[in-house]
Amino acid sequence: MPKIPQVITCKAAICWGIGKPVTVEEIEVEPPKATEVRVKMLCASICHTDISGTKGFPHTNFPIALGHEGVGVIESVGDQVTNLKEGDVVIPTYIGDYVLKVEPTIDPIHASFISCGFSTGFGAAWKEAKVESGSIVAVFGLGAVGLGAVIGAKMHGATRIIGIDTNEKKREKGEAFGMTDFINPSDSDKSTSELVKELSGGMGVDYSFECTGVPTLITESLEATKVGTGKAIVIGAGTEPILPLGLLAILLGRTLKGSIFGGLKATSDLSVIANKCHKKEFPLQELFTHEVSLGDIHKAFELVKQPNCVKVVINMS
Amino acid sequence: MPKIPQVITCKAAICWGIGKPVTVEEIEVEPPKATEVRVKMLCASICHTDISGTKGFPHTNFPIALGHEGVGVIESVGDQVTNLKEGDVVIPTYIGDYVLKVEPTIDPIHASFISCGFSTGFGAAWKEAKVESGSIVAVFGLGAVGLGAVIGAKMHGATRIIGIDTNEKKREKGEAFGMTDFINPSDSDKSTSELVKELSGGMGVDYSFECTGVPTLITESLEATKVGTGKAIVIGAGTEPILPLGLLAILLGRTLKGSIFGGLKATSDLSVIANKCHKKEFPLQELFTHEVSLGDIHKAFELVKQPNCVKVVINMS
Repeated sequence: MPKIPQVITCKAAICWGIGKPVTVEEIEVEPPKATEVRVKMLCASICHTDISGTKGFPHTNFPIALGHEGVGVIESVGDQVTNLKEGDVVIPTYIGDYVLKVEPTIDPIHASFISCGFSTGFGAAWKEAKVESGSIVAVFGLGAVGLGAVIGAKMHGATRIIGIDTNEKKREKGEAFGMTDFINPSDSDKSTSELVKELSGGMGVDYSFECTGVPTLITESLEATKVGTGKAIVIGAGTEPILPLGLLAILLGRTLKGSIFGGLKATSDLSVIANKCHKKEFPLQELFTHEVSLGDIHKAFELVKQPNCVKVVINMS
Repeated sequence: MPKIPQVITCKAAICWGIGKPVTVEEIEVEPPKATEVRVKMLCASICHTDISGTKGFPHTNFPIALGHEGVGVIESVGDQVTNLKEGDVVIPTYIGDYVLKVEPTIDPIHASFISCGFSTGFGAAWKEAKVESGSIVAVFGLGAVGLGAVIGAKMHGATRIIGIDTNEKKREKGEAFGMTDFINPSDSDKSTSELVKELSGGMGVDYSFECTGVPTLITESLEATKVGTGKAIVIGAGTEPILPLGLLAILLGRTLKGSIFGGLKATSDLSVIANKCHKKEFPLQELFTHEVSLGDIHKAFELVKQPNCVKVVINMS
């Protein structure tokens, strides 16, 4: 006889409103409905949309339970679920309410990284830009999303990958993922797009990836691409609802494309990435810079501001 | 013996600086260099970039001779020109400094329309959006550019073509070119993107074309398209250098693409359009609402502001 799932209580990181501190509280979780599964999280990493989420963007529904970027184990399943069972290790994906089953021997911390930001960047290069052999690309912002775009571009044949970050410590991170050139815009009076053009024969890049969420960098990322054919993918989710866009930058035949989860299909495409993660094809250990327990969640939001921080992992045990 | 071309004098519509009136003056024109041709204009129509040109956008090089949208006859050729000869009827195109030879029996006024705005719109549907059979499209602004986009979408299989204009008189113009639905945003308190969605099953259109140059309509044209796959083509060349872009509109996977001359190749693609023009496949007579002589050029800039005006043709004779 399968056991009948009951309401359970567990701890969660809750934000009650815009600007309110994140607190760890006991919550009740309903049993899974017919086609649902209930997942016990093993670990989660802080994603920048957790931070913007506490500022009311893109949703203003409070209270919210944070921690969408993570990995867990199925605790119970609804009575119509046949393809998953208790004990399966899964990544919950934030689009379409899917979970993806992964190899139980996958590194759980690495699996949490690929459940959101890193894969969004990887997908942006693979599925949105469709980077091809010989492409020249620029990546604005070398956090987990940007580093995903760097290695996504590299694995799809880009021969020149220009990383841009005002944090000098990101140079070595970028190089670990396949970046060939680094720009620190703080070192120059020139605009970032000019600096990118200087490194790409004056014409600009084929593809650029805006992973910072800094409003003025949308136009810079577009200006950094070739006239007529250049394409800029916007991934960085800032909190300003209206961005300034340079008219000439877009009129000159360039393309600006937004991206939901890097254009990845939650099951087929993400499982390709999960397999590469399991086979250690990505240097994901480079992302893992800090770890705190769930009870110390408030520290996590301070740590992500530090220059040597890429990812803070929340250990649920 | 071929005659040796000399410097000639002719009349031209000149603007000496931002905000200065356009004056008709005698100018000298050098003989064509080796690979150049010298063209005597037969007629030109006023293009909105003539107006923005007098305001210093996109160029601030003054004085400028206006009237790029027109048709002419080759007056003399450089000594390395073999594919064109004196007497050929040509459309000068504003990209790449090409001229396209057209049938001498083409209607010169219609030929002037296809040399710039109309073809830019047509090309935006054909080459930039790549409208396919069954597409649903929205066209913001039903001037010559927008009407070109309407018929370009129709000829490439769009089944629903929603035209948008605050000028009620544009309804019949739109219908003449293949528009299936008309929105006058002045009639409603709702946003234009909401009105478009209501007409397209709630999901929005596959492609939209922003042909007004009104800065706030960039985001509206993007919002009017489907989440994830929608594509907005920006053609309207306003004079505001920085446009407001809605972050969520672009982040939700949509594409914003600028267009230079509708993505048309100046020779091969434009000759396809010129052939359709010659065969009267476009109702271009609907665009021709006013005509003035070159000496009355100042009237032309007043006429284009009138609600019943689509195109003002300048007769050079």
